[in-house]
Amino acid sequence: MLNRTVLFISDGTGITAGALGKLLEHFPSTHFTQVRLPFTDTLDKIKLAQEAILHATELDGGRPVVIMSLGNIELRNALKQSNAYFIDLFNTFIDPLGLELDQKPLTGAGIAHSVMGSSYHERMEAINFTLGHDDGMTNFGLEEAEVILIGVSRCGKTPTSIYLAMQFGIKAANYPLIPEDFERGVLPAVLHKHLDKIFGLTIKAERLHSVRSERRPDSFYASLENCRKEIATAEGLMRDAGITWADSTSRSIEELSAIILQKIRKPVN
Amino acid sequence: MLNRTVLFISDGTGITAGALGKLLEHFPSTHFTQVRLPFTDTLDKIKLAQEAILHATELDGGRPVVIMSLGNIELRNALKQSNAYFIDLFNTFIDPLGLELDQKPLTGAGIAHSVMGSSYHERMEAINFTLGHDDGMTNFGLEEAEVILIGVSRCGKTPTSIYLAMQFGIKAANYPLIPEDFERGVLPAVLHKHLDKIFGLTIKAERLHSVRSERRPDSFYASLENCRKEIATAEGLMRDAGITWADSTSRSIEELSAIILQKIRKPVN
Repeated sequence: MLNRTVLFISDGTGITAGALGKLLEHFPSTHFTQVRLPFTDTLDKIKLAQEAILHATELDGGRPVVIMSLGNIELRNALKQSNAYFIDLFNTFIDPLGLELDQKPLTGAGIAHSVMGSSYHERMEAINFTLGHDDGMTNFGLEEAEVILIGVSRCGKTPTSIYLAMQFGIKAANYPLIPEDFERGVLPAVLHKHLDKIFGLTIKAERLHSVRSERRPDSFYASLENCRKEIATAEGLMRDAGITWADSTSRSIEELSAIILQKIRKPVN
Repeated sequence: MLNRTVLFISDGTGITAGALGKLLEHFPSTHFTQVRLPFTDTLDKIKLAQEAILHATELDGGRPVVIMSLGNIELRNALKQSNAYFIDLFNTFIDPLGLELDQKPLTGAGIAHSVMGSSYHERMEAINFTLGHDDGMTNFGLEEAEVILIGVSRCGKTPTSIYLAMQFGIKAANYPLIPEDFERGVLPAVLHKHLDKIFGLTIKAERLHSVRSERRPDSFYASLENCRKEIATAEGLMRDAGITWADSTSRSIEELSAIILQKIRKPVN
């Protein structure tokens, strides 16, 4: 397998540059060593970055990929004296977009992820809401929720809720379906008036059995038989109530969130 | 203020394309309406996307910006029949990178954010760990933590911990500093053996007063005087223990996380 180093060099957090790192998944036969160099905002730090580039080249026996976001053109040009494959977010993205918009971009450091960003406070509020409405811990304030995820215990509700809040600023509550609900044969009463914003998660029994067994090995709770029964009953309850659901077994929280977003929001936000 | 629509059109979740949306913060005098069209993986869906482009053009009186990630070249070319300013992640990033690496990229839909991704399971484990070690809820398993955030109540420990886990797969515990610690005048005993992985957060008293007042108005807990005293004492405890800390008052969780990462990890991961 080929070894290559990818350096994310930014004058800010490097998070936007780092997000592009996800595109490396398109090249599965290369092993990428990822190096993050945030807050690279002086010529001295550029020199350190250049040393890192040299070092990576020696280690890998090939020049590294550099994904860079540097607002200051002097720093940008200095870095490019090194031998690397440069993906420059200013050159390829921000500056051309400025021409299209007929506007000069801000070039200060760390513009993209400051607390001044357009949605930051909304996202923080959503995270607080979601943490306070995890696992049905309170029915108070559910009318504020933009979505309520339901499903059996350990089917992925919590991480998906938090991702929705953190990434998209969505107030996402979640509510477990538990044996009491299955015996009663209907959704918890508190959910009835929120049917329009409920989204279900389900999971394959074998996978649930394995996830629950990690937490409580050899328990009735984790047994394959109980998992099968809970899932079938939960899906029945959701079907009766006309609730859309998605299977979390082979989907990432990013994929589940994108599906949920499509259901609960108009594409515009 | 100029109005422009940005459409994120992807055959997968659209999350990588959406991350580039952060770069729009460099153009503060344009108001961007963001439209997400994930799972655009058929010609029929491309047609819907083209209608959305037309609609946006009429609304704004100018062509929209389209940030697109479509692996299938037929879909890509079809979409580009529309009049828009296209930023094509395959054309600009993935295909040229393939030339550099001398490798053909995978072009299937949703490669970047599948559960098959290189770090997905590590991230999910970290999220579970972090949620289970929030707010000092247990001392059990702290040796597994990669970082332990400490600080006064409501200074930003929880969202920062969760961000570290979700984004970087870091097992981040957090531990509040509370009046009992201040009276004793030393850090909680359980933390003594983990000093090397503790990172402190602090906050300006006025900001803490305002945050706490939202939760418990007119309480002693939220009073400016108590906030001042708690912060000064907490900073004293951290100073005595030789702990690095950062001020969360005007920093986003992304910025705090980037600072913490620099402290706890070699840049390589």
